[in-house]
Amino acid sequence: MSDLDGILLFPHINMDGDALGSCSALCLALRSLGKKAYVMINEPVPKNLDFLECGCCTTDDSVLEDVQLSLMLDCNGIKRIPGREAAWERGRLKGCIDHHATASKDIRYDFTRIEPKSAATGEIIYRLIKDLGAEITLDIANCLFAAITTDTGNFQHTNTTSRSHEIAGHLYKVEGFNSKVISALIYDRRSKEALRLESAVLGDLDFYADGKLAVGKVTQDLLSQYGCTMDEAEGIIQRIMSIDGVEAGCLFKESSQDNVRASLRGRTYANMERVASRFGGGGHVLASGCTFHTTVAEAEKQLVPCLIEAVNV
Amino acid sequence: MSDLDGILLFPHINMDGDALGSCSALCLALRSLGKKAYVMINEPVPKNLDFLECGCCTTDDSVLEDVQLSLMLDCNGIKRIPGREAAWERGRLKGCIDHHATASKDIRYDFTRIEPKSAATGEIIYRLIKDLGAEITLDIANCLFAAITTDTGNFQHTNTTSRSHEIAGHLYKVEGFNSKVISALIYDRRSKEALRLESAVLGDLDFYADGKLAVGKVTQDLLSQYGCTMDEAEGIIQRIMSIDGVEAGCLFKESSQDNVRASLRGRTYANMERVASRFGGGGHVLASGCTFHTTVAEAEKQLVPCLIEAVNV
Repeated sequence: MSDLDGILLFPHINMDGDALGSCSALCLALRSLGKKAYVMINEPVPKNLDFLECGCCTTDDSVLEDVQLSLMLDCNGIKRIPGREAAWERGRLKGCIDHHATASKDIRYDFTRIEPKSAATGEIIYRLIKDLGAEITLDIANCLFAAITTDTGNFQHTNTTSRSHEIAGHLYKVEGFNSKVISALIYDRRSKEALRLESAVLGDLDFYADGKLAVGKVTQDLLSQYGCTMDEAEGIIQRIMSIDGVEAGCLFKESSQDNVRASLRGRTYANMERVASRFGGGGHVLASGCTFHTTVAEAEKQLVPCLIEAVNV
Repeated sequence: MSDLDGILLFPHINMDGDALGSCSALCLALRSLGKKAYVMINEPVPKNLDFLECGCCTTDDSVLEDVQLSLMLDCNGIKRIPGREAAWERGRLKGCIDHHATASKDIRYDFTRIEPKSAATGEIIYRLIKDLGAEITLDIANCLFAAITTDTGNFQHTNTTSRSHEIAGHLYKVEGFNSKVISALIYDRRSKEALRLESAVLGDLDFYADGKLAVGKVTQDLLSQYGCTMDEAEGIIQRIMSIDGVEAGCLFKESSQDNVRASLRGRTYANMERVASRFGGGGHVLASGCTFHTTVAEAEKQLVPCLIEAVNV
């Protein structure tokens, strides 16, 4: 990468802390080395991740005259960057840096760096930035901490490793670094309305398989009732997973009458990646998702039996 | 400590993950070195911390014939171990290991190890166990991880340091260690009733000082209504702190008509330790508490003006 200039970085659709944090961290590092680099997006940055933008994001790939490298981060496969295919194609070389195990075959990459043992793509980017010889500035440290802490569930999930902590430990040594500031930006800017929406969803869960499966729904009706947008439903699935005895959790998010996203979480053994893949989705074993082009009721009818099967193995 | 035998370890009243985790970790390490050691308690272990008991706890100090050392952990001062004064006095030597800055003068200790820069007493205990030459077994790693992760707010609070992560990183290297298992035991065993109680409390918050101060109440009435006990209110204060713009949060917990505990949290600058100390309480700058021997209404009348002052500095 050190001999390339004009680099477009691509986070996956429905960008999360790891996707955007990794892209911005690498973008800032590349710029510090004198290169032209941008993070190519075509959706709004979620409010709680706005501080990760760092002046890196663009929705217009023409900011770069010559794109020597298109680089996909925290994802793998052209379907993960919908609406940005033309920008992607501009890269004379194409690469992929990811920690998801499921490799897509729909793109021919010139190079890939796929490390499923990394808890976050941010961990791979940390080492890449060090290898490139760039300095870990405070902005870069913030981006990488956000990437790692969100993808590890604040260092609690099974994917967390000794190395996740080692890298975090190094970030604390960056002058001015304060995890609480980052953490508060990510997690502690919820509106009162969002809290009320969450209370309503959690008060109306359906339980199956002796309480091992809990299913919630965020419908457009609920959103209007509480004056919320869908991104304010963030975090509800984690709350579902905090209930005693729940092995698998599912949250249906109705974007429209025929577009329903199901977020799936497993606690210890329920393989959510397998369930999601049956409906064209993917992710990790204990955290996956899939999309239905049906009503919520129909999506529920299709998905719930598979989830019951997954908790009853 | 290596030449002493017959050791009673004292966690503070209203034991938390750091107090009990530190005590049990040290107790197990001392036992592995062939010493007699117990954790002396006189209240039930909270349900979400039951796995930290590890066969170490006793409510009867007569299990030890000779007490060569009484050691207070994660606290400082005789008032922090009410009802256990007689057991404490049995120690021929008395010591204190703590990370709270406020040192009490009501006990003459033979030795103290007070390190306010440690995020958790568990961090001090980790190093002590290494110094003693004991092995960090899986049980000890679990206790120490619980201690550190609870006291650092899962590695998010300002008290977290590079060393917190370094120690956590070492714990991951212990055979069989899985942070998710520990995390699920601590955080993910909430009853449906507790979630409903939380929704009710969060739906009825009072806001002051342009939303910078949020105040909630868990009364005996609410507890009966939802069929909950007070320990199920755990975590509500953190939820209050997740609201956009809230700089200080207060949760009143009514144990009885004339015993009300106020949990206080600050986000960035509001000094909660100072407020708590005005009412005979204490803790850390951003996480403190104090007790009122009045009604909730009266406690509120006394405390809220001081909290408003603290957020309006």
